[in-house]
Amino acid sequence: MAVGLKEPEGIIRIRGLRWGVARAGIRYQDRDDLALAELRPGATTAAVFTRNAFRAAPVVVAEEHLAAGPPRYLLVNAGNANAGTGPRGLEDARFCCRALAAQAGCRTEEVLPFSTGVIGEPLPATNMATALPAALDTLTEDGWAAAARAVMTTDTVPKAVSRQELVRDGTITVTGLAKGSGMIRPDMATMLAFVATDLRVPEDLLRRCLKDAVERSFHRITVDGDTSTNDAVVLVATGAHGGLRVDSPESESYRGLAAAVEAVCTELAQAVVRDAEGATRFLTVRVSGGRDRAECLAVAWAIAHSPLVKTAAFAGDPNWGRILAAVGRAGLADLDIPAVRIRLDEELVVEGGAAAATYTEARGAEVMARPEYTIHVELGRGDAEERVWTSDLSHDYVRINAEYRT
Amino acid sequence: MAVGLKEPEGIIRIRGLRWGVARAGIRYQDRDDLALAELRPGATTAAVFTRNAFRAAPVVVAEEHLAAGPPRYLLVNAGNANAGTGPRGLEDARFCCRALAAQAGCRTEEVLPFSTGVIGEPLPATNMATALPAALDTLTEDGWAAAARAVMTTDTVPKAVSRQELVRDGTITVTGLAKGSGMIRPDMATMLAFVATDLRVPEDLLRRCLKDAVERSFHRITVDGDTSTNDAVVLVATGAHGGLRVDSPESESYRGLAAAVEAVCTELAQAVVRDAEGATRFLTVRVSGGRDRAECLAVAWAIAHSPLVKTAAFAGDPNWGRILAAVGRAGLADLDIPAVRIRLDEELVVEGGAAAATYTEARGAEVMARPEYTIHVELGRGDAEERVWTSDLSHDYVRINAEYRT
Repeated sequence: MAVGLKEPEGIIRIRGLRWGVARAGIRYQDRDDLALAELRPGATTAAVFTRNAFRAAPVVVAEEHLAAGPPRYLLVNAGNANAGTGPRGLEDARFCCRALAAQAGCRTEEVLPFSTGVIGEPLPATNMATALPAALDTLTEDGWAAAARAVMTTDTVPKAVSRQELVRDGTITVTGLAKGSGMIRPDMATMLAFVATDLRVPEDLLRRCLKDAVERSFHRITVDGDTSTNDAVVLVATGAHGGLRVDSPESESYRGLAAAVEAVCTELAQAVVRDAEGATRFLTVRVSGGRDRAECLAVAWAIAHSPLVKTAAFAGDPNWGRILAAVGRAGLADLDIPAVRIRLDEELVVEGGAAAATYTEARGAEVMARPEYTIHVELGRGDAEERVWTSDLSHDYVRINAEYRT
Repeated sequence: MAVGLKEPEGIIRIRGLRWGVARAGIRYQDRDDLALAELRPGATTAAVFTRNAFRAAPVVVAEEHLAAGPPRYLLVNAGNANAGTGPRGLEDARFCCRALAAQAGCRTEEVLPFSTGVIGEPLPATNMATALPAALDTLTEDGWAAAARAVMTTDTVPKAVSRQELVRDGTITVTGLAKGSGMIRPDMATMLAFVATDLRVPEDLLRRCLKDAVERSFHRITVDGDTSTNDAVVLVATGAHGGLRVDSPESESYRGLAAAVEAVCTELAQAVVRDAEGATRFLTVRVSGGRDRAECLAVAWAIAHSPLVKTAAFAGDPNWGRILAAVGRAGLADLDIPAVRIRLDEELVVEGGAAAATYTEARGAEVMARPEYTIHVELGRGDAEERVWTSDLSHDYVRINAEYRT
């Protein structure tokens, strides 16, 4: 039950990057569950991985291979995370890379593996190897939507988006896809995202561009506060665009690229929350008036992680006391609660440590009946501001996660 | 649906402390919702309050009054938290204290107020004042069970417990009651607890005794990670016991008292978790082999707060990958995941970063079908150890908290 999320449309191909898909029968039957991106020689790639100390085998191998040089292929499967699989998991991930390298005619280190799905079960690596020829046969620059669909697990809607920025010397195009629905938390999520541009971008600038964009997008969402073992976000610059080059962080083209990458990452990150397990609401938690951004974030996360706030959101119950209680437990030194204001969209709800004089339950309930709204906390002690996105906590979240493996 | 929790029995009265109850019609009808403890002159009292910066009016007033001298009355109501009520809330709390003082013949500062229930609605203070004569009429040393029942909100079972310690010179008796079921988190919970002994104990020793006991009991439980605005734990020493005195922390009587208070607090804290909103499981999370207790606690809380672990517990699904993922995101430096072992009760589940060789799903499922079991994580890098208690996350938790005010 995704909130305000439609099937992808208007996806713009990226010259120099082709996606292929196949049915490997890893966990799901009768659907594609393997996706494969082929990158043009000369493409540069940057990636950020989960900060969970328990790292899935493909994360370990992808990081190793990326350090060895620019990749030619990204190999993704859904249905099995290849995490908690010990030394065998590493062997399986490497086996899949080697199998693809042999068929595609590249080096094993030029393949980066990515997995998402159930933890703790061996990866059916031979199934994957068997499906590779079919995936290679379907490679096309128009494959973004099919790939977005192939990598889904508990997602209900495929997620892909494009952005273009016009700069003096031409057009910058950025397209990305993502999967993710549960085990979503700051510092990455159960989430894979692949974003690409056809510009030629040096690796150091590409890494900087990705890091900045992720910090303001994927690192600002939470569903359940659980960090996945498999998260990865990849940014590819194929270099197929003839005219435009990005050669310094001050250049107009870099600024255009950064804006487009941030916009794509933000929309994909929001799409993950919109499609959060069991979500019926899409909530923006905005905290302003803080002494610094760190304390604004602390308050925003306390609200976004509160099961009581999230169940009230599910019920559409304007129980603002739960929001104020979450503000209070966020650990801010010398916080003056009477100075705090809370708004639900345009409605002033709390001021002076109590309900605002103009506030009525009916008005609060009206805002909270909206599928999307903003919880805005003004701390009243500075100029810093932050915002994160989250979902409500519904019966379906419990059902989906209680039944996940059954 | 409390887990392994029975109606209180064998409650031992504490000489010098009488409880009275009454129907004030604050929120609940047709049941007592006001409880009142009268302390013998000469009794000493220690208390710890919520660490939430958003403090309910009664917490502010109780702390003020306690600082002014030893209290004679504790006045408790259920159904309304008198939190988020601004200056009016403080007036209401003081008004109730003044009304009781006038009727009972003591000073206003000798009354400590406590409230629990809905946040953000004005306290019906006149209802409370009107009910005070009835409460005073029912004062009795046998009133513990009635008081435990009167302070319930979403609790399904009243919580009271007694312990005795035999020391050389006599018997130490400690009795306590508590309420709490949701908004439960380390550093206190939506929770009130009143514990008493008939010994004579100097205030400084009483404070030390309470602080130590709370640290190992009420500060080791979580239901939903939400800290209440109203938490308070009170320890009263009435001094009515003729024979025994506690005059130094090294004395046998102090050690006996400390053991009994910790035992009572632990059982009450566990009772809160057993009666957690929607709970179907009582989980002990034990973490050993850490470098220090802080990192053991960090891991224990990461597991105990994980919605994915808690929904798996609800389902009885031995999805150990979620436990290992929670260990991995607890923020421990240089954590070597392959060195971590996870047990479910006696069953070794994870070692070497994967399922243990002897482990089968059927064995894991057998343990997780038990109403109570221990998740034991061995970090394998030191000698420190900690343990916390929590519940699962069920459909009923969502239902109860979505419907709380409707």
